[in-house]
Order: sequence, then structure tokens, then C-alpha cells
Amino acid sequence: MDPLFTETGVFLALEGGEGAGKSTQAFMLVEWLESLGHGVLLTREPGATEVGKILRHIVLDNDTGELSPRTEVLLYAADKAEHVDQIVLPALAEGTIVLTDRYVDSLLAYQGAGRHLDSAEVEHLARWATSSLRPHLTIVLDIDPAIGHLRFEGADRIESEPLEFHQRVRQHFLDLAAADPQHYLVVGGDGTPAEIHAEIRAAVEPWLGQASA
Amino acid sequence: MDPLFTETGVFLALEGGEGAGKSTQAFMLVEWLESLGHGVLLTREPGATEVGKILRHIVLDNDTGELSPRTEVLLYAADKAEHVDQIVLPALAEGTIVLTDRYVDSLLAYQGAGRHLDSAEVEHLARWATSSLRPHLTIVLDIDPAIGHLRFEGADRIESEPLEFHQRVRQHFLDLAAADPQHYLVVGGDGTPAEIHAEIRAAVEPWLGQASA
Repeated sequence: MDPLFTETGVFLALEGGEGAGKSTQAFMLVEWLESLGHGVLLTREPGATEVGKILRHIVLDNDTGELSPRTEVLLYAADKAEHVDQIVLPALAEGTIVLTDRYVDSLLAYQGAGRHLDSAEVEHLARWATSSLRPHLTIVLDIDPAIGHLRFEGADRIESEPLEFHQRVRQHFLDLAAADPQHYLVVGGDGTPAEIHAEIRAAVEPWLGQASA
Repeated sequence: MDPLFTETGVFLALEGGEGAGKSTQAFMLVEWLESLGHGVLLTREPGATEVGKILRHIVLDNDTGELSPRTEVLLYAADKAEHVDQIVLPALAEGTIVLTDRYVDSLLAYQGAGRHLDSAEVEHLARWATSSLRPHLTIVLDIDPAIGHLRFEGADRIESEPLEFHQRVRQHFLDLAAADPQHYLVVGGDGTPAEIHAEIRAAVEPWLGQASA
């Protein structure tokens, strides 16, 4: 399936491990884009739609217990299909800048690399679920999992995986970015929030031409 | 992915449209197999596992409203992955006869043919979800949807689809059976329950050698 980059709106994804400061950067980015007069939608995976909220609960709640790895992938993929069709594509069609906290790369990194499933199959599935829609720019907040873990207090089903799992996840994000530098920005999560924000601004700016203002 | 037919236990699937008498035949078949001294597990899709119960609610409840067709397929596939890994494969490994009320063919027929999604993609997904595990015998209870509908009182999200949807579904079951006659039995749903049961017995009997008794 060929990648699909929509010609209206701007589609941005924030990716990275736990404790890298994604939430802080998301809010700073939205504030800046709105100050420029753009319509911005901040959304997330999993859990942005009604069905997605139920699925988020299943995949993240410790009460769920063991899931077959394929079940987990399919639930994440279902969340993505609903998110793309009901929220992301309609907003892009109106010229909105859509910023999603996690997207396909998280599935590839956490379930493909983290769970040792066949990466090609997981990617095929994720692309089918999302109609091959790609972000114009994916911002990877890169942090050493040993440090990210220290920053993180709550621990859900994914966060409580061992450090070695999160190291495979980190490497997979870096590999995805290295393979397509035009559509990726990797920012070290060890800068100050303002420094990281400045790097993100510079990378987002060239894409703003196709958003409504 | 090559089909997988396990060498222990016997895996049987009951398929067909609404109102074809699947439940009646399932109970008659289980009673007969148990009378022969076999261990039998009667199960169903969707909804046999804890997660599956939640997913069954989402896909069948009218309150869910519109779902993206890809979301629907992925939810059914997640139910199948969990069902196969947690229930079907462990039971087969013990030599049990597993009879499932609906399996992969229902996904292919209802979501592939019924929803006009790419059949090859839906099949690829369903096979991945189930590790390509195939029933030794799939029993298709075939009934004219116009008649099956009359028999059926309740109407969930799927049952309330128009007649033309159910006609595509029926044809797809028949096509699957025609392509692999060794592993399919098509029984006209217009016989008496006892007549249908006799046909099913005759078709199941040759497979019983690999079940525990």
C-alpha cells in the first residue's frame, strides 16, 4: 500500500517512550500553532473515539491480565481505524492541523518490536487499519528508557514491561526515523522543554502552507 | 499462510445465516458426541473470552451506532485471536472435540462479502488472527435469507442489515464450501432438525478417530 499524505490540513504525530515529555510538547506546540491563527486538533491513540475509549481501557488496564499478543495488536489497530475514519481524516479535509499523541509507529514499536511479533505483518495490518495515511511529520521524543522510567510514576500494562522491552521500542522509533528523514524529526528528550519546543517549531514550520489559517 | 489442521482433537465449525437452526444443531451434535464418550467443548464467536464479551457487545449492540467497516473487522479479528489462543488451541491439544458456533468464514462472509471490503485483505487478516487454524469440518446450515429472517425475532446490528446483504453472505458461505469440499458440509436448513442432524452425524463421524474418547 502506497503511503497517503493528504493534500489538505497538516497531520503531525508525536511519538516516543514513556516520560519523554510528550504531553508538555503537545501543549506547547498547539499553543504556538493557535497563536499563528491555525485551527488545531489535539488527539491521541488509543482512546479518541467512543469505541476507542473502551479499547484503551482493555489494552492499558492491569485488570485485563494476559492478552494474546495478536489480540493486543488487533485492538490497537481497531482503535486506529476508528480514529482515522471518524476524527483524523474529517479534520484534515477541513484544513485543520491534526496533532496525534501516538500513531502507527507506536504500534510498530511497542507491539512489533516490543512483543517480537512479525514486524512485516504488524506493519501491513497497521497500514490497512489506517488506509495508509501517514503523518507529514512524526516527531520522535527520544529518551533513554532508564531515565524515562524514573520520571514516570503510574504504571499500566505497557509501562510495567521490563527495561529491555522499552529499549527495543526506542531503537525501533529511531530506525523508522532514519529510514524516512523527510518525514521525521528526532529530538533528544534531555533538552529543556523550551529547547525541544524550538526544534519542533523549526521542523513543523515548512509544512504549515497547506493548513487553513 | 498454509492452513493448519491440528493433529489432536477435532475442530468443528457451524456456520450459516440467521434463523438456520444453528443452536438446535449445535446442541444435538454435542449430545450425540458426548453419548459416544468424547470430551466436547461448545464455544462461539464472538464473545467466548472475557475480552471477547466486551467486543461482542460493541459489534452487535445497536447502541454502538456506525462503526468504520475496518474497525468492525478488526474487532471481530481480535475476538478470534483471543478465542483461538486462550480456548480453542488448548482444548484441541487435550484431544477435545471443539465445536464453535461461527468462525473465520463468518468474518469473510459478513464483513468481506457483506460490507464490500477487499476480500483478500479480510482473509489475510482473519488467517493471521487465528494463526491459520482451520476446522477439520465446517458445517454450513444453508437457508434462504428471506425465510431465515422470518424465523428470527430479535434484531441486532448485523441482523438488521437489508436482505440483499444477507444474500451476499449466503453466497459467500456456499462459495467457500464449494472451493474445499473435503472440509465442508452444506446442509439445507429446510429439512427437519432430525434430518439435518443425521446428515451432520454422517459427515462428522470420519473425523472422530483423532479425538479422545
